[in-house]
Amino acid sequence: MQKKFVYLFKEGSADMKNLLGGKGANLSQMTSLGLPVPQGFTVTTEACNKYYVDGEKLTPEVEKQIFVALKKIESETGKVFGDAKNPLLVSVRSGSRASMPGMMDTILNLGLNDKVVEGLATLTGNVRFAYDSYRRFIQMFADVVMGIKRELFEDEMDKIKVAKGVTKDTDLNDLDLKNLVIKFKKIYAKHKGEEFPEQPNVQLIEAVKAVFRSWNNERAIAYRRMNDIPAEWGTAVNIQSMVFGNMGDESGTGVAFTRNPATGEKALFGEYLMNAQGEDVVAGIRTPNPIIELEKQNPAVFKEFVDICDKLEDFYKDMQDMEFTIENGKLYMLQTRNGKRTATAALKIAIDLVSEGKISKKEALMKIEPRSLDSLLHPTFKQDALKKAKVLSHGLAASPGAGCGIISISPKQAMKCAERKIQTILVRTETSPEDIEGMAAATGVLTATGGMTSHAAVVARGMGIACVAGCEGLKIDEKNKVVTINNKSFKEGDYISIDGTLGNVYGEKIETEEASISGDFATIMAWVDEYTKLKVRANADTAKDARRAIQLGAVGIGLCRTEHMFFEKDRIKAIREMIVATNLEEREKALGKLLPMQKGDFYKLFKELNGKPCTIRYIDPPLHEFLPTAEKDIAEIAKDLGKTTAELKHVIEELKEFNPMMGFRGCRLAIVIPELARMQTRAMLGAALDCKKEGTPVCPELMVPLIGDVKELQYIKDIIHATAKELMEEVGMQVDYTVGTMIEIPRAAITADKIAKEADFFSFGTNDLTQMTYGFSRDDAAKFLKEYYFKRIFESDPFVRVDEEGVGYLMRKAVSLGRGAKPTLKCGICGEHGGDPASVKFAHKIGLNYVSCSPYRVPIARLAAAQAVISESM
Amino acid sequence: MQKKFVYLFKEGSADMKNLLGGKGANLSQMTSLGLPVPQGFTVTTEACNKYYVDGEKLTPEVEKQIFVALKKIESETGKVFGDAKNPLLVSVRSGSRASMPGMMDTILNLGLNDKVVEGLATLTGNVRFAYDSYRRFIQMFADVVMGIKRELFEDEMDKIKVAKGVTKDTDLNDLDLKNLVIKFKKIYAKHKGEEFPEQPNVQLIEAVKAVFRSWNNERAIAYRRMNDIPAEWGTAVNIQSMVFGNMGDESGTGVAFTRNPATGEKALFGEYLMNAQGEDVVAGIRTPNPIIELEKQNPAVFKEFVDICDKLEDFYKDMQDMEFTIENGKLYMLQTRNGKRTATAALKIAIDLVSEGKISKKEALMKIEPRSLDSLLHPTFKQDALKKAKVLSHGLAASPGAGCGIISISPKQAMKCAERKIQTILVRTETSPEDIEGMAAATGVLTATGGMTSHAAVVARGMGIACVAGCEGLKIDEKNKVVTINNKSFKEGDYISIDGTLGNVYGEKIETEEASISGDFATIMAWVDEYTKLKVRANADTAKDARRAIQLGAVGIGLCRTEHMFFEKDRIKAIREMIVATNLEEREKALGKLLPMQKGDFYKLFKELNGKPCTIRYIDPPLHEFLPTAEKDIAEIAKDLGKTTAELKHVIEELKEFNPMMGFRGCRLAIVIPELARMQTRAMLGAALDCKKEGTPVCPELMVPLIGDVKELQYIKDIIHATAKELMEEVGMQVDYTVGTMIEIPRAAITADKIAKEADFFSFGTNDLTQMTYGFSRDDAAKFLKEYYFKRIFESDPFVRVDEEGVGYLMRKAVSLGRGAKPTLKCGICGEHGGDPASVKFAHKIGLNYVSCSPYRVPIARLAAAQAVISESM
Repeated sequence: MQKKFVYLFKEGSADMKNLLGGKGANLSQMTSLGLPVPQGFTVTTEACNKYYVDGEKLTPEVEKQIFVALKKIESETGKVFGDAKNPLLVSVRSGSRASMPGMMDTILNLGLNDKVVEGLATLTGNVRFAYDSYRRFIQMFADVVMGIKRELFEDEMDKIKVAKGVTKDTDLNDLDLKNLVIKFKKIYAKHKGEEFPEQPNVQLIEAVKAVFRSWNNERAIAYRRMNDIPAEWGTAVNIQSMVFGNMGDESGTGVAFTRNPATGEKALFGEYLMNAQGEDVVAGIRTPNPIIELEKQNPAVFKEFVDICDKLEDFYKDMQDMEFTIENGKLYMLQTRNGKRTATAALKIAIDLVSEGKISKKEALMKIEPRSLDSLLHPTFKQDALKKAKVLSHGLAASPGAGCGIISISPKQAMKCAERKIQTILVRTETSPEDIEGMAAATGVLTATGGMTSHAAVVARGMGIACVAGCEGLKIDEKNKVVTINNKSFKEGDYISIDGTLGNVYGEKIETEEASISGDFATIMAWVDEYTKLKVRANADTAKDARRAIQLGAVGIGLCRTEHMFFEKDRIKAIREMIVATNLEEREKALGKLLPMQKGDFYKLFKELNGKPCTIRYIDPPLHEFLPTAEKDIAEIAKDLGKTTAELKHVIEELKEFNPMMGFRGCRLAIVIPELARMQTRAMLGAALDCKKEGTPVCPELMVPLIGDVKELQYIKDIIHATAKELMEEVGMQVDYTVGTMIEIPRAAITADKIAKEADFFSFGTNDLTQMTYGFSRDDAAKFLKEYYFKRIFESDPFVRVDEEGVGYLMRKAVSLGRGAKPTLKCGICGEHGGDPASVKFAHKIGLNYVSCSPYRVPIARLAAAQAVISESM
Repeated sequence: MQKKFVYLFKEGSADMKNLLGGKGANLSQMTSLGLPVPQGFTVTTEACNKYYVDGEKLTPEVEKQIFVALKKIESETGKVFGDAKNPLLVSVRSGSRASMPGMMDTILNLGLNDKVVEGLATLTGNVRFAYDSYRRFIQMFADVVMGIKRELFEDEMDKIKVAKGVTKDTDLNDLDLKNLVIKFKKIYAKHKGEEFPEQPNVQLIEAVKAVFRSWNNERAIAYRRMNDIPAEWGTAVNIQSMVFGNMGDESGTGVAFTRNPATGEKALFGEYLMNAQGEDVVAGIRTPNPIIELEKQNPAVFKEFVDICDKLEDFYKDMQDMEFTIENGKLYMLQTRNGKRTATAALKIAIDLVSEGKISKKEALMKIEPRSLDSLLHPTFKQDALKKAKVLSHGLAASPGAGCGIISISPKQAMKCAERKIQTILVRTETSPEDIEGMAAATGVLTATGGMTSHAAVVARGMGIACVAGCEGLKIDEKNKVVTINNKSFKEGDYISIDGTLGNVYGEKIETEEASISGDFATIMAWVDEYTKLKVRANADTAKDARRAIQLGAVGIGLCRTEHMFFEKDRIKAIREMIVATNLEEREKALGKLLPMQKGDFYKLFKELNGKPCTIRYIDPPLHEFLPTAEKDIAEIAKDLGKTTAELKHVIEELKEFNPMMGFRGCRLAIVIPELARMQTRAMLGAALDCKKEGTPVCPELMVPLIGDVKELQYIKDIIHATAKELMEEVGMQVDYTVGTMIEIPRAAITADKIAKEADFFSFGTNDLTQMTYGFSRDDAAKFLKEYYFKRIFESDPFVRVDEEGVGYLMRKAVSLGRGAKPTLKCGICGEHGGDPASVKFAHKIGLNYVSCSPYRVPIARLAAAQAVISESM
């Protein structure tokens, strides 16, 4: 028996989404619920995959099934495809398993040709309508199916309007439109090298192929990557008989949601337009009416529609987003789907549906997209204020949230503002590690250069402050303290505002409001905690970050990067002294200066955590990161350090590396310079002892990075234990601590059984592990990975979502070897993957104890962790 | 029962080497063969390991066993340790499982103190002898056991000689020596802060501990790393009763070999000195006599010695290296061991022992150290000429062999010399890829800067030409074409000679002779082929290298790096044009220029191979390697390419990478620039088709580098097959070829089952695989790995010897996954590990089909492969 590639709407149902796509399955479902749906059929996602397997060809078998289905629609509607007397016209729409808005435009009115259009005119008694439909169809077919630029057609239309001295499309008469059809067909023939296809069957098959092709256009590939949609899902094609909302004043078309998609409020929301086709609602030429006005205009249709809304929400148990058309007073449903919504609305709807008894808590949690919570956690502009504001420039949306304040050109100035409690935006050409204090003092950072992984972007995301990077038309005159944005000048002290979620820059003050983590958010998070097994910790380097993390539900710190503290002004000098030291005595002297500062930081951190676990990582980055690179800085800093410029240059030269990522960093630093590990151990445990003395409970977990061989860990552990023993004897008091390691080098995962014998915990550094496992560095790969996505070699960014097959294999292996050797071994992730929902679910699946992510991603990770548990029981 | 940590010589035997060390086991064996051995005992290697486990302490139990054994020696010799009337004196020597020459100096005459020395003087009637022995002992004990500099003692001795106006030690009389003893003890007390230990028991225990400590001195660690000796073997200590060769004219001492260690000739070889202790033979103050003269001087002792030699060679079935002492006319054997020998001697001795019927062929092959063959394969200086020559400077022994020729300062000049068949040495500050043709034209390369992994070193090793890198005192004045070496000036055209095996530079002409690969070498290699299962191929990029490789026994080419060809003058311009091209047309035009050149190279290679397999790798290095870096070159080259300097700089900037090793290279190039793969496929298969047309058989194997995901390979394979099909249709002829991949990224090993479905063969790129698995780059790691060796974290260089635990795990995994998916999958190694004997044995063990190494290492790999098979059957 032949495989079935085409399903009539009445043959399908909502649970056939994988085969029929979302749109097709829902049209089938509405049909079987007895709702008024213009009949049609769906070409399956399997047909799409077959199309690609066959070398981008539609086989005769599939074509045959299409025409068989078409015949059935003809007999059902009593209309005939291509028949001028009683023509069947169809729409052709894509529809994949997941909603992919804008992947491919819809083609309407397919089946029209020079003869059929005349029939349509006769049948409807409306020549203008017929020819308007025809010219629209030619334009859509040319654009969407054949890739001829739509501007060519629009230009032609504009020419006619200019010639006639009119401005609106509706001012064109029958003849104008007839002429336009002739011109459109000429454009088509010229650009395509062949005539516009008059045969409806050819039109239909070409349209189906175009939908399949669109599955792999650049837009679709990018959308799939961002939304974790696999390429092998494919898209279905829906062919539906046309109904016309533009047949006159008894006709119309509209879009509606069963609840408010912005607020979640339980009230019908949407708009409609009489005597119009779908595209007119969107085009903005005419202003649509609020849906509620339909009640006055046509109470019967409105009532029918409201009933349908209730029926659909009851069936789908979720807020619905629907399209409808009224043809000569009769209501038709063209689409329904679970509606997209803001995060605020998502929470409210989920909670309301539970209290309405429609869904369970578990189901409610599964309805919320974890990633969407991000937008709830950052400050936003006050809506009223924003409406009046004007966008001055754009940049990359480098770190989400809204920020408003006076301009600071230097980090120093930003710190001054912070002291005086004045909100400020730090504006820099680009930031460097020395700017870190200034960044922490600002409510936002705006840079002229740099991308999504630039210093400014990475640090701002970590701090949870807004950042727009690579702002267009931004120039900074540091000498005269003048900032120019798109030719508009600002002085230090002038207000600007930035939107790090959208990348917008405003040359004015726009008031912001803090995110609320109470209300619905708190309700949902409380439900989350009923299910979650995986613990969620945060990556935080300061007491301030730690406080925020705990507010957002972190149960501890999974990664405190000690080197971030080194970049502050006093400290960077000391660390530089340590680096340029020529003997042990000089080195220990420099480290002696750092010790009280580090200890002070850890003390504050432990106080904030009040007994929650805190994983502190020993210094990790290559030392050259602490040295200057600019010629003028070198001379100045050399002087500062009491060295000649030549001496400092020599040290810089010595530390230069071919591949810094694979160089002198991580535990390698402590092996070559054991004094570093000794000082840091004294700082960590000294602070812990101070807290304990004061009665504050502490739980320090000391973490050694970049281990590749167990002997590295043994060597450093010996130093740690010896230092700890010495310190505790000096203080005359004991404090418990554990020593663990990062697993971020493939060899560590492979030899995890040996390493586990020496480690109390494993923390997967998935960033580095991904880099080493794939053999490409994150920064360098960005350039060629674009091509990988385009050529379908990669479907998702392995730096965002854990590569389960390769990196995941090493993780599983490390967990099983490690727990085999030490059943009590605690395992977690620290690294950006810790805040990615798919990766969190993977972490749950392989039995990790916790994930650690940036504070603002903690709620995302918590929800993802709960969903992982719920999916197992569903 | 207590563990036995001390063995009397009569309790052991030759097969207890692991426990007693080589020296101890052989002393035991000689004892049980009934040879005259001064009796003593051995403290085991297990005691050494225990010493370290116990925190560098000797436990009372071990000390007790030592003194029990000592008592037995006392009763056997009738002498008493520390007894002034009839003193037992002992020597203390280290002795590990493998011979580690120079690891620790010997301590003689232990047991002497102020009283015992007087007894010794009375007993021997020789005051001078007694005090000379005493001052020697103090000096040795202070130096070797306590680490006090020996110069301090030598200075004191010199002072006395100057004061007395004499030059020889033997000119000092009893009183002088007594004074010297007093002075030596003062030096000891001053530097040690305590008196010289008079109690013999303390002397003994301190000496034993010093031997154990010496196991981990820097010299020993370095030696172990270079010779693959594990740290856990530990060393034994041999304590042997002293006999004295310096008791008068009837006494003497000597060293001898049963065969000539330089040539292998079967004739007693060695020297001796009457009235002397061991160190006098080495010290060079007196000239020793050839061993054969002993026959005249003392025929009875000589005969006894010759008999012993025969007995030992018969027992050990190998050439022996022995030490002996004659005390008052009686012969004592102090040591025997298998003698170190030159490679020439090793081959001759192995062959002779087989023809003498003493050993089998298998045993003969096991006696030859594969690495030693290296020295046989390169030109050497004629011995007579070398004797007269004077070393002018030193550098790193960067590529082995002797080279002599006139100086060329530029590659161009070197090429001119080659055209005129004049031998030349290319002298450069450092070399760069553009110099490659000049290097190929030279017989040797001398550079002023750069280390063992510098461009000059790596390329010269690959080409098999001599190279001395980082030569001290070398300056090159390119403008005036003058080379200065340690203040001596040379012009272009003057002769110099370099020894790349030793790192010596000579300012004169020294004639060289070519290596012979016939004679004994050919005999051994023929035996090798009887056992070897693993095939050995060579890495070769040119027909010339391929020819040499085949002469040395390669069965094919395992790696032809196509990019090496790109650096030649005409080609680098074309590749640069390709890189700076702004559109496909320009790019294809540039590639069009490269095509015939590459095709020509492959044609020559296939002709040379005449049907032997040839694995050709697609372009691998990052493109920036082909672009200039110096400001002046950029301007010039931009002009050459018809671009502005700014345009070229922009391209260079675009290609700049943070971590080039993990950047845009390998298969990533062909994915982004498919035209590159198309051109190279046309060149490879076009050349193959041309050969086939002419009747020359060909076996092209096309290899795609740096695969991390099967989809990368699929993408490129599609291009290869499509291009091949197109080409074969054009030519109207078919040619067989295979497509395989390198496994050099951890992820490729992990997903090898999927990759194997698309690949005909796997070639492990162990260099990159080691880098990624450990997470450090070879160039950058060199700096900190020194510290790793010193701290015993690493024992061998993973870039020399395959890390079996980590990298080896991935290799095993890839082979088993790969063959599981495709049982016929061919697997091999290309990369420097392919020529390392231990790695070759590992390759055999995990079932690889072949290894591929540089041509000059082919015999080494063949022998190692044979040994791997033989060890399995032994």
